[in-house]
Amino acid sequence: MSRSDTAPTISETARQLRNGAATSRSLTTACLQRITELNPRLNAFITVLADRALADASKADAELASGTDRGPLQGIPLSLKDLIDLEGSPTTAASRLRQGHVARRDAPIVTRLKEAGAVFVGKCNLHEFAYGTTSEDSAYGPVRHPLDPSRSAGGSSGGSAVAIATGMCFASVGTDTGGSIRIPAALCGIVGLKPGLGELPLSGIVPLSGSLDHVGPMTRSVEDTWIVWNAMRGETSVSRGFSPLSLDKVRIGVPRSYFFDVLEDGVRACFEERLKHLKAAGADVQDVWIPHGKDAPAIYLHIQAPEAASVHARSLEQHPDAYSPNVRWRLEAGRYLLAEDHVRAQLGRRVLRHEVDETLQTCRALVLPTVPITSPPIGAVEVTAGGRKQLVRGLMLKLTQLFNLTGHPVISIPGGVTESGWPCGFQVVGRRGETEALLRIAGACERAGR
Amino acid sequence: MSRSDTAPTISETARQLRNGAATSRSLTTACLQRITELNPRLNAFITVLADRALADASKADAELASGTDRGPLQGIPLSLKDLIDLEGSPTTAASRLRQGHVARRDAPIVTRLKEAGAVFVGKCNLHEFAYGTTSEDSAYGPVRHPLDPSRSAGGSSGGSAVAIATGMCFASVGTDTGGSIRIPAALCGIVGLKPGLGELPLSGIVPLSGSLDHVGPMTRSVEDTWIVWNAMRGETSVSRGFSPLSLDKVRIGVPRSYFFDVLEDGVRACFEERLKHLKAAGADVQDVWIPHGKDAPAIYLHIQAPEAASVHARSLEQHPDAYSPNVRWRLEAGRYLLAEDHVRAQLGRRVLRHEVDETLQTCRALVLPTVPITSPPIGAVEVTAGGRKQLVRGLMLKLTQLFNLTGHPVISIPGGVTESGWPCGFQVVGRRGETEALLRIAGACERAGR
Repeated sequence: MSRSDTAPTISETARQLRNGAATSRSLTTACLQRITELNPRLNAFITVLADRALADASKADAELASGTDRGPLQGIPLSLKDLIDLEGSPTTAASRLRQGHVARRDAPIVTRLKEAGAVFVGKCNLHEFAYGTTSEDSAYGPVRHPLDPSRSAGGSSGGSAVAIATGMCFASVGTDTGGSIRIPAALCGIVGLKPGLGELPLSGIVPLSGSLDHVGPMTRSVEDTWIVWNAMRGETSVSRGFSPLSLDKVRIGVPRSYFFDVLEDGVRACFEERLKHLKAAGADVQDVWIPHGKDAPAIYLHIQAPEAASVHARSLEQHPDAYSPNVRWRLEAGRYLLAEDHVRAQLGRRVLRHEVDETLQTCRALVLPTVPITSPPIGAVEVTAGGRKQLVRGLMLKLTQLFNLTGHPVISIPGGVTESGWPCGFQVVGRRGETEALLRIAGACERAGR
Repeated sequence: MSRSDTAPTISETARQLRNGAATSRSLTTACLQRITELNPRLNAFITVLADRALADASKADAELASGTDRGPLQGIPLSLKDLIDLEGSPTTAASRLRQGHVARRDAPIVTRLKEAGAVFVGKCNLHEFAYGTTSEDSAYGPVRHPLDPSRSAGGSSGGSAVAIATGMCFASVGTDTGGSIRIPAALCGIVGLKPGLGELPLSGIVPLSGSLDHVGPMTRSVEDTWIVWNAMRGETSVSRGFSPLSLDKVRIGVPRSYFFDVLEDGVRACFEERLKHLKAAGADVQDVWIPHGKDAPAIYLHIQAPEAASVHARSLEQHPDAYSPNVRWRLEAGRYLLAEDHVRAQLGRRVLRHEVDETLQTCRALVLPTVPITSPPIGAVEVTAGGRKQLVRGLMLKLTQLFNLTGHPVISIPGGVTESGWPCGFQVVGRRGETEALLRIAGACERAGR
């Protein structure tokens, strides 16, 4: 775990590949060794593509040697959450229902990453069909937290977060329907970006809930996120540098009401500590209020659950036992919700989007913790937080799901480590359509925290 | 009824107002007299605004006399379907539930019509809450067809169609969720436009189903529709003339499959007769196919019904007996539909929109009858058509509802009169975002039919 703090970033490594200090083959070999060493315990990968990755690495080295420079991702070992299609490999979605599947073509975002020269070392474990926040329900066994294998790495992109945090790859691509990139990023101490709704194409990715799904990068730094995000949208960022914004006099909003009602003490302390750093860097930090924020869970449920149910209805009827019990239960419960409530939730969603837009007219970004708690034990249904027992799933989604509804770009960056040694996440929310600006603000927040 | 064939249009009358052959006060007085004479039998109006209309007419005359020309609607007597807010008047929506309501401000489209100088003679009867195709369920009694008071004028904007057809006003504003402008226009032999989805603002209008509702003009000619439509969107059309397109070599598509399966013989004969006129005018008429057109009714039901139910849920629980039985039944049935099916219907809606868009890449417009039957008896649940008994509601919506789902602009123009003497409608469907072009094509179809 401590590896993640010292592990090299893509931006540093890209320079080494160009000054002879490293080769893609040496980086890839090191990642594959790390997988061999740690994966039996942490279960971060479902499929490891050793031969293919080494061949791609050699090709990247040859290209660089011959003067073909595809930009900072060229030759860098990455991974994919295993619900994203990579031609010729199975896309398991961590489910027995997908047995025998082999992707016939790359998802468009994979094509773009290949064009940027990325080397894929494997496909990462996840919560079955991305329908969970802990990565504990998987046909391939639970993903385990690097600091304690009895704890959850968060989810649903748990394998991706563990792989990055432990040096099995430099970055990964995850998906986020209610927080599935940001939650494991927070719990494992890495960076994860949910871009704006609709910003990146979702085809070739197993859907969870069509109107809430997002795909995005998971990395070790904000600059690396910027590099992978640019490649995913088909932008070559070679000639442009990443420059964090100055926080001086930048208005930052903190939506305490409702969102801060239940926070683990350590999470609250880490968050307040980081706010001090932002203020020290000149930020004008103000409390803000999102009037219907407290209604986000009900609105989210009535959109997310029936969307997922409509995708799975037929296979739920034909192969109910093939799902892991928790995922089956969630899917089946979604089938009983009423259309009238779905209509109401869609109206509520528009109200929330408007309210967050309005709030972001008064400040440049919102900041809040990513998850109200640190890593829960694998298998726990409840944890104690804020003085009483709380449902894990509700808490895990509480600070992230709002922005899947509203579509704003959000990044989770490392937000410190509690006294007990567990990482916390720090979310930065940007204006719609301004993901690049969000990354520049997040880069400044990352620097202020150092 | 024969009145509608000879009754003057807005464009003709606007000239008379400017050359001294008429005054707004004389036109308004004539309309009010016509209402006094016919409304006891036809029930087209819920509220008549005689004093107010005469005052507005005098004001229009004074303005014209003083040289202030607001364009062709200035001084023209219009009406509004009584679910559109007119400041200081009740908006009954033809329901006992709205007793005591008085609009505190004008709907935006009313403001625009007032700015264009329109004179409002009253508020027209409709199917309660616009939730029906026959205008027979109204707290103010059924609207009756001018040719036979035992027959339906169509709905839900039935009062508006009757008022125009019988000379009680020159034009009206209706709403269309599944066909509610076009159906009564067809059955009463007038013109009705459903503009593109989202083209005109819906605020100040009692909603039926938020994602399907449209507001639009009902008139006696396509040019008049163009005049009222321009005023409703805030365009002053004074300086521009209306010019029908030449149909020479214009490709027109006819979606026979499914849509023509059940047509009353007279409706089919009128339609084919009009097609001959289009061909004689040079049009290149071709059959086209909308692959999932047959699924439109199921998709429509699963979107329309729960949207209506979500609006009425509370008052259905509190005052169920205040609704007319048919409307109550439709609303309550909508409460039992599942969210999963609503999600599926929303996906189906996108497929239909794409298919109609694709079809309209191969031709400039689609044409089809507006309603498969002529005016049904008031109170009929079934009619015989195509050799067997059919449900009236299903038939009435069959040719119109698709375009509420897809959002394409559609106009219904008079499509001839059957041997038994009943009017038929002829629908012309345009490309999305091209309502002006649709009106120019419809103007040519209208001229070709003369």
